[in-house]
Amino acid sequence: MTKNRQIVVRDLPKGDLTEDHFELREGDVPSIEDGQALVRTILISIDAANRAWMQGPTYRKAVKEGDIMHAYCIGEVVESRDDALKTGDIVATEAGWAEYTAVKADNAEKLPDYRPLSHLISGFGIAGKTAYHGLIDVGQPKAGNTVVVSAAAGSVGMYVGQIAKALGCRAVGIAGGPEKCAWVTDELGFDACVDYRGGNLFKDLKAACPAGIDVYFDNVGGQVLETVLFQMNIKSRVVCCGSVSQYDTDSATGPRNLPGLVVVKRLRMEGFIYFDFIDQDAKATADLRNWTSEGKIKIVDDIVDGLENAPRALIGLLAGDNRGKRMVRVAPDPA
Amino acid sequence: MTKNRQIVVRDLPKGDLTEDHFELREGDVPSIEDGQALVRTILISIDAANRAWMQGPTYRKAVKEGDIMHAYCIGEVVESRDDALKTGDIVATEAGWAEYTAVKADNAEKLPDYRPLSHLISGFGIAGKTAYHGLIDVGQPKAGNTVVVSAAAGSVGMYVGQIAKALGCRAVGIAGGPEKCAWVTDELGFDACVDYRGGNLFKDLKAACPAGIDVYFDNVGGQVLETVLFQMNIKSRVVCCGSVSQYDTDSATGPRNLPGLVVVKRLRMEGFIYFDFIDQDAKATADLRNWTSEGKIKIVDDIVDGLENAPRALIGLLAGDNRGKRMVRVAPDPA
Repeated sequence: MTKNRQIVVRDLPKGDLTEDHFELREGDVPSIEDGQALVRTILISIDAANRAWMQGPTYRKAVKEGDIMHAYCIGEVVESRDDALKTGDIVATEAGWAEYTAVKADNAEKLPDYRPLSHLISGFGIAGKTAYHGLIDVGQPKAGNTVVVSAAAGSVGMYVGQIAKALGCRAVGIAGGPEKCAWVTDELGFDACVDYRGGNLFKDLKAACPAGIDVYFDNVGGQVLETVLFQMNIKSRVVCCGSVSQYDTDSATGPRNLPGLVVVKRLRMEGFIYFDFIDQDAKATADLRNWTSEGKIKIVDDIVDGLENAPRALIGLLAGDNRGKRMVRVAPDPA
Repeated sequence: MTKNRQIVVRDLPKGDLTEDHFELREGDVPSIEDGQALVRTILISIDAANRAWMQGPTYRKAVKEGDIMHAYCIGEVVESRDDALKTGDIVATEAGWAEYTAVKADNAEKLPDYRPLSHLISGFGIAGKTAYHGLIDVGQPKAGNTVVVSAAAGSVGMYVGQIAKALGCRAVGIAGGPEKCAWVTDELGFDACVDYRGGNLFKDLKAACPAGIDVYFDNVGGQVLETVLFQMNIKSRVVCCGSVSQYDTDSATGPRNLPGLVVVKRLRMEGFIYFDFIDQDAKATADLRNWTSEGKIKIVDDIVDGLENAPRALIGLLAGDNRGKRMVRVAPDPA
């Protein structure tokens, strides 16, 4: 345990992200100070937001050239200089694309004893809870409402539709390509899924939402948002979770019907981050576990093996080639 | 009483609205049916929304070619075939740019005995109540918050800032040109007013809002909205009242930072129409009258004389040449 493979950001992207923006290096295992723990990475969460972090500061600090790529990770404590953590603890923490990271004990959350660990990132972790709080607390759907979600096969979108169904709503996904759409309806049980690459998003969505749209859970922004806005019902809600169509570019344009349609249709558009609702975490966890054991929610993870594949995993995610929560496995789950 | 001067929409505008889109005609005074009243127009409300009605259906039906131009009016009942209205009643109603209109009694609201009637359109009417409910119920400002409002010298904006001051907020306007900005601070008592035509909106606004922006009351959309969004505080509110910058054009573009900044800053953007809050009308009226008699709110009307000047009054409003609520006077207030 003296070498530490790590992936560094060589250049910040101006347009599309490519593998050349990253470099695999071998560094030293960091030494830790008082209040820190050394964490061996098990799973790295791969998120569209990782790309947004490369555009500048957001709700967190920006990724800079020369940084080990930032990431949300699950790992095992292998050395600790803080009373709150001991060797063998499994934690979730902001770390990076590296085998070992020195983290502040304050920034590490001890995880419950649950396997597979991947579910603590996906269905019972950030992805599931982002879907849960965004849909329920921000979107406020009623039974019978039509809920539309973009990136429906993605880490958050797949739970939004399944939770909507569990609440008695009509769940309509938007995803890219016929195979993905079929997966969303057949595997996840959405009522319909519209292919935004099919060239007829407006008409296809209209056919899938004959009573209009009451809640739109937006993961993508851009043109898809513009199209959906025209079909929102009066006094309906747009849950703003992400705008992935705008992350991997320098030439973002805004929906031309904003803010006009917000006025005319008296829409509420609202952004959130799941940790705004951290005080309701116990209820979210209980609901998600119950729905899963009742078979109402299926957890599907998209795990790419090997630290060296992290750049490709992120680039592929931005191109939409994932189904479910994407992660990179760096080490096996401890028994 | 046999002739009825009226202004008809000759062509719907494609880009800028001009006087050529209208035609003054002399028609007959309409005859009325059961359930209707004949209303003699006293004041015509001139609103930026009139232009939006010419773009297609909104929260109301669209204006079509050949229509007498639609408008919200105050008038006097001169003949009635409905028990709810009698000759001499003063009513507010959807009518048009004409001396006489046949209106459904159901669609006419009897007004209180108050003079001048213009205040029942402005400070104590749609303008004041749109400002009141939009700011208070949608924007939810707290004392000490910074409230920014665009079109600050306009019919609604002028009350938004004055109400914000009455609630103990810092009120910052955005308006076009140094004279208008001076009027907003000197006459209306806003803490500051920034000239969006001055070429430094971002910097000037930043200087006027050192603690960031907690509530933005948006009347204009477009570039101004885009600039303001960058200075909104986390979890702050955008009250979407209008997007006048986008009405008089066929080439609207959307703010490039939407929905990205709504996500990152967890903003709430919400549209409304004042009649969504009609059940709270008594409280709104009482508050507005009290603030006015305490000198906290000044009512300033911008009245253009003569039906034939209605097209010019609307075109000028869209160019921003009004100060306060613009109306056209067709007949004097009855004693």
